[in-house]
Amino acid sequence: MKIVCTKSNLVKGVSIVSKAVPSKTTMSILECVLIDATTDIIRLTANDMELGIQTDIEGEIIERGMIAIDAKFFSEIVRKLPDSDVIIETDESLQTTIVCEKAKFNISGKPGDEFSYLPIIEKDESIEVSQFTLKEVIRQTIFSIADSDSNKLMTGELFEIKNNMLRVVSLDGHRISIRKIALNADVTDKKLVVPGKTLIEISKILSGEAESKVNISYTSNHIVFEFDNTVVVSRLLEGEYFKIDQMLSSDYDTKVRINKKELLNCIDRATLLVKEGDKKPIIINIGDEIMELKIKSQIGSMNEEIMINKEGKDLLIGFNPKFLIDALRVIDDEEVTLYLMNAKAPCFIKDDNETYIYLILPVNFNAAG
Amino acid sequence: MKIVCTKSNLVKGVSIVSKAVPSKTTMSILECVLIDATTDIIRLTANDMELGIQTDIEGEIIERGMIAIDAKFFSEIVRKLPDSDVIIETDESLQTTIVCEKAKFNISGKPGDEFSYLPIIEKDESIEVSQFTLKEVIRQTIFSIADSDSNKLMTGELFEIKNNMLRVVSLDGHRISIRKIALNADVTDKKLVVPGKTLIEISKILSGEAESKVNISYTSNHIVFEFDNTVVVSRLLEGEYFKIDQMLSSDYDTKVRINKKELLNCIDRATLLVKEGDKKPIIINIGDEIMELKIKSQIGSMNEEIMINKEGKDLLIGFNPKFLIDALRVIDDEEVTLYLMNAKAPCFIKDDNETYIYLILPVNFNAAG
Repeated sequence: MKIVCTKSNLVKGVSIVSKAVPSKTTMSILECVLIDATTDIIRLTANDMELGIQTDIEGEIIERGMIAIDAKFFSEIVRKLPDSDVIIETDESLQTTIVCEKAKFNISGKPGDEFSYLPIIEKDESIEVSQFTLKEVIRQTIFSIADSDSNKLMTGELFEIKNNMLRVVSLDGHRISIRKIALNADVTDKKLVVPGKTLIEISKILSGEAESKVNISYTSNHIVFEFDNTVVVSRLLEGEYFKIDQMLSSDYDTKVRINKKELLNCIDRATLLVKEGDKKPIIINIGDEIMELKIKSQIGSMNEEIMINKEGKDLLIGFNPKFLIDALRVIDDEEVTLYLMNAKAPCFIKDDNETYIYLILPVNFNAAG
Repeated sequence: MKIVCTKSNLVKGVSIVSKAVPSKTTMSILECVLIDATTDIIRLTANDMELGIQTDIEGEIIERGMIAIDAKFFSEIVRKLPDSDVIIETDESLQTTIVCEKAKFNISGKPGDEFSYLPIIEKDESIEVSQFTLKEVIRQTIFSIADSDSNKLMTGELFEIKNNMLRVVSLDGHRISIRKIALNADVTDKKLVVPGKTLIEISKILSGEAESKVNISYTSNHIVFEFDNTVVVSRLLEGEYFKIDQMLSSDYDTKVRINKKELLNCIDRATLLVKEGDKKPIIINIGDEIMELKIKSQIGSMNEEIMINKEGKDLLIGFNPKFLIDALRVIDDEEVTLYLMNAKAPCFIKDDNETYIYLILPVNFNAAG
């Protein structure tokens, strides 16, 4: 194999597919990037058997062939080359030379046919959203997946297609995050549970451009994201996702409108007094026009008042401050609305059209403390 | 005590003195910042017994007094306050309230008289350099102090005043870094060994402005840096520093002029093939007009050629690539000159006036490898 392409194209391509290279594995072929120039295009692929990414890069094929190269070293070498054309050439013994201007690297490759290609997916159906939307939706929900594997389904996100709407849901037992977006075409209803890791990696690759589209297709076992020159294939998580609709209620006894930044900054300051792992709640006292926030720990105490617009009853309620911070951080609105029932019922932060809903369970606290 | 000052003044002051707060200590008073408002100025002090820093901040003293507060929490709280006036008030039981707009923190302080004040230094003599110069000189030498305590003197830097020149020297057994600057006044010859930690912390505080001066005074046990509203006092290291002059030679058989950036980038690329802890040398082959650099490891091999301007003999010599990189990174010149004798003798990188000298010992290598 002998190919020529620019350093910048190569860096971009390797950086995209490297997201599917496992950080730990016993199979050294999985640590490789496959450079496939057996046809008329130069295609890079990485595949950890759960998540696979391929991307096509521009360049010239002088001699067809393919080679698998250690992803980490290949990526580091390419990144440090001068900004010029890069020639990659392999010989029969899989020795690979990488030449750029006067620099010449020589490393061993592995045979390309040992590499696991991406599975070929029979696409049942597909939807289309902008790169911007997909990236935003992931950012606004991914924080509330569970990080432990004790319940596998909680480590993924529900992608639910219903009535030409896409609803993305994550939950971890203490809170639920929901984002809803309208689809532009008629599609059959469908529920998929996408691994959180896939979504985290894909959101790093997405350009975030509003004009650029992502085609999302799926079978019962796989989901495929196609955008720019890149294809991301991921297994789905098996099993039935949690029934969340029965947890969502539109009843409330207290409704609070509040400046988001003021609330966020205040809770952020309060967490200074809480050491990692310490479960001190922030106590919120909702009165007429004023919300008082209090926290008390071994380190000290803090209280602060914020002006609010309230409808309904007064309420004293406690929360894990981190959960409030996580939700408030990803909301772009200047003002947010909180819906509450009582000190034992969940708090809902949502907009009027319910394009986002954040459900947060309260925590018990000692009112005298 | 009751004082009022702006958030930004407080943040700046706390950030300066926090450099002298030890990260680990069994004496909890050392983890504190002392706020001293017993006179007409508000003075912050931290002191780990080796290094002490005090800085005066602008503000209003409403009630005189002093208090010692945990530096970490105080600094975090102050940083997250709204950008407004901050009122700090203590009561008889050392409870300290920090109020800023509607936010109110309450933490316990410690009595100020438990705090170790900075030692009062009888200044024998002093020199003056600009903040820019001191910061640069530290940056250009600090990388070659030894990080282990096996030889205490190697963890510091020699400040040698001689013939109205200040020479700053560091060495670690494999290399020596020297920077020389002219002083603007007549001063007595003197040798001081300043702890590396002191220099690292002080260079973080220095503004780096060329117009702003640092006054450096010293006794046989202490060195004092005074600049802006800040005083840094450090113990000196005891003992006689290494005799370096006999290691410096102006003889050479090979002299090479080379573009610094090309050389640095080439060595930087070569180190990709060297894993942490692996001691593979970079082998440099100096010929007429061309210098060839080669490295070979288990991962692969690399070679590259750079155009040079050579006087004297050809030479094949090996170096630890890290040592070359460290020196080249801190040199600001576009071209550098290397002076070499043979494959066993040190290489000198220096400018014509010897304002900087970097001595690097070569390493043995297998020429056949």
